[in-house]
Amino acid sequence: MKKIINNISDVEREMLEGLVAAAPKKLVKLNGYNIVHRANLNRDKVALLSGGGSGHEPAHAGYVGFGMLDAAVAGPVFSSPNAGAIFKAIETVANPNGVLCIVKNYTGDILNFELAIEKARSIGIKVDHVIVADDVASQSTAVGRRGVAGTVLVHKIAGALAETGAPLERVKAIAQRTIDNVRSMGMAIRPCTVPATGVPNFELSDKEMEIGIGIHGEPGMRRERLTNADGITRKILNRILSHLEYAGREVVVMVNGMGATPFMELCIVNNFIKEYLYRNGVLDVYDTMIGNYMTSIDMAGFSITLLRLDDEIKMYYNAAVDTFALKK
Amino acid sequence: MKKIINNISDVEREMLEGLVAAAPKKLVKLNGYNIVHRANLNRDKVALLSGGGSGHEPAHAGYVGFGMLDAAVAGPVFSSPNAGAIFKAIETVANPNGVLCIVKNYTGDILNFELAIEKARSIGIKVDHVIVADDVASQSTAVGRRGVAGTVLVHKIAGALAETGAPLERVKAIAQRTIDNVRSMGMAIRPCTVPATGVPNFELSDKEMEIGIGIHGEPGMRRERLTNADGITRKILNRILSHLEYAGREVVVMVNGMGATPFMELCIVNNFIKEYLYRNGVLDVYDTMIGNYMTSIDMAGFSITLLRLDDEIKMYYNAAVDTFALKK
Repeated sequence: MKKIINNISDVEREMLEGLVAAAPKKLVKLNGYNIVHRANLNRDKVALLSGGGSGHEPAHAGYVGFGMLDAAVAGPVFSSPNAGAIFKAIETVANPNGVLCIVKNYTGDILNFELAIEKARSIGIKVDHVIVADDVASQSTAVGRRGVAGTVLVHKIAGALAETGAPLERVKAIAQRTIDNVRSMGMAIRPCTVPATGVPNFELSDKEMEIGIGIHGEPGMRRERLTNADGITRKILNRILSHLEYAGREVVVMVNGMGATPFMELCIVNNFIKEYLYRNGVLDVYDTMIGNYMTSIDMAGFSITLLRLDDEIKMYYNAAVDTFALKK
Repeated sequence: MKKIINNISDVEREMLEGLVAAAPKKLVKLNGYNIVHRANLNRDKVALLSGGGSGHEPAHAGYVGFGMLDAAVAGPVFSSPNAGAIFKAIETVANPNGVLCIVKNYTGDILNFELAIEKARSIGIKVDHVIVADDVASQSTAVGRRGVAGTVLVHKIAGALAETGAPLERVKAIAQRTIDNVRSMGMAIRPCTVPATGVPNFELSDKEMEIGIGIHGEPGMRRERLTNADGITRKILNRILSHLEYAGREVVVMVNGMGATPFMELCIVNNFIKEYLYRNGVLDVYDTMIGNYMTSIDMAGFSITLLRLDDEIKMYYNAAVDTFALKK
């Protein structure tokens, strides 16, 4: 394993401290917890909290700030934070307007967030949650669609509405509507290596790729012969397009790098997308995001996310945002 | 070689087309040229042009937009654009206020930019240039300090002044002052692979790293045993600190990924920097940038850039910027 780290057991803490050190006026890390919150918490709005295993950076701590999250709680690499840490994060941001937890659809995350929410409610904290499930690759598995890069757009849309002072029910409703309208799928040409194990999550020959990978190093739905960028992109788009009706709709496209994918390759992927969507009836690609938004440590590959817009989602998509990893 | 590309000969063009497709209201690619310019060129200001070989994305096309560049010209991967293409770019952005070319210190880039500038002057275009030389690793080589990630800060500072309508001489002067105050150094744990050759630029065992690498896959000043993040960071900072007097100064820190380095590792690197700079007499880390700003395709590694601030540089550092790869 080759990584630029110190002790394996300090990776999560040092990473969050290093992020906060880059924005000390805007971000605070709670002592003793892998929780990052806004330096100036606004108690007059619904608080947004997200979290999950580490290894998906800049998610989620990179999205703490005006227009997105109020706090993020990080577990060990690829493992859910425990219920105690999640409860601590809820308690930290809680205010009478309530807290909305944005949870990705993984068994551990859901279990621990629900335990923490139950405990928070038992002491009178107003708190609710939504579950993001955008990965069409895992649609037919027992757990259903996993939560992947689409989560970042849920942070963005719900975060923008929350800044207006809207009540918890409305913030939850638009988060859910964003979830209902967002779908993703990913692929990899090289696996990632979890620091604690030191070995790649799967092996791929020089001529193979994994289609439909998860963000926790899960191998894909199937292993295929590596084709060219256009062929891979078409395959992923076809799969996403078959899951929702996109004809006549405006969409936001996110081309997301998995951590070790050069920007060059992400742009080449994007070069195929717009015309192909138009040929498949999409009315307009309203905006395109290209970058590392929800990664899988040092995996080489990408995911594509399509968000269907309506007037309200579009308005909140366009709203100002000031976080370390996303600014508008 | 595993890459997400189509034909090797189309990499540069498709990458730029894919970038422009993501921001079609803001960016235009010149037909038949690997030149990207602002969709709405402002003829009432000095035009800023940069460029060089491809493979450093998002540099330079990602920095075209309000507050930074007016255009960028891209050569083949790791090779200078030819003088004809540079001339075309100068001609495209030329206006009576003049054009400032921001050139990185490489023999090919300088030769071709100077030829293009000579030709432009011969037809009456007002054009000048500066040469960025921030890489302390190559200080004692024949070419001297190479131009690396510090170039992005030169775009930023000079670009902000240019937006105010300042004359060419002043824009050139602040670009030069930024160059005089910026130093960088990089390292790699894994080499990059140029699409056209298909093989890594150098070989490293699992226990080795290269210290002082260039952004064109040049091996480092020396090969060393891979140590931990803090040790590597200290070594790089010591080298940079020995090249300029930083005591009592405010600095901007840029922790730059080389293309395949996870954000997690860049944050861990950053976690060491601030306190170490303070212990070495730096007055204040005014701001910290962490991300992939000037890459080397799919190299795994990072560089650190320190920019010394003065009141004017700080003001232009803080100015609004709206490009694909940098927003404030």
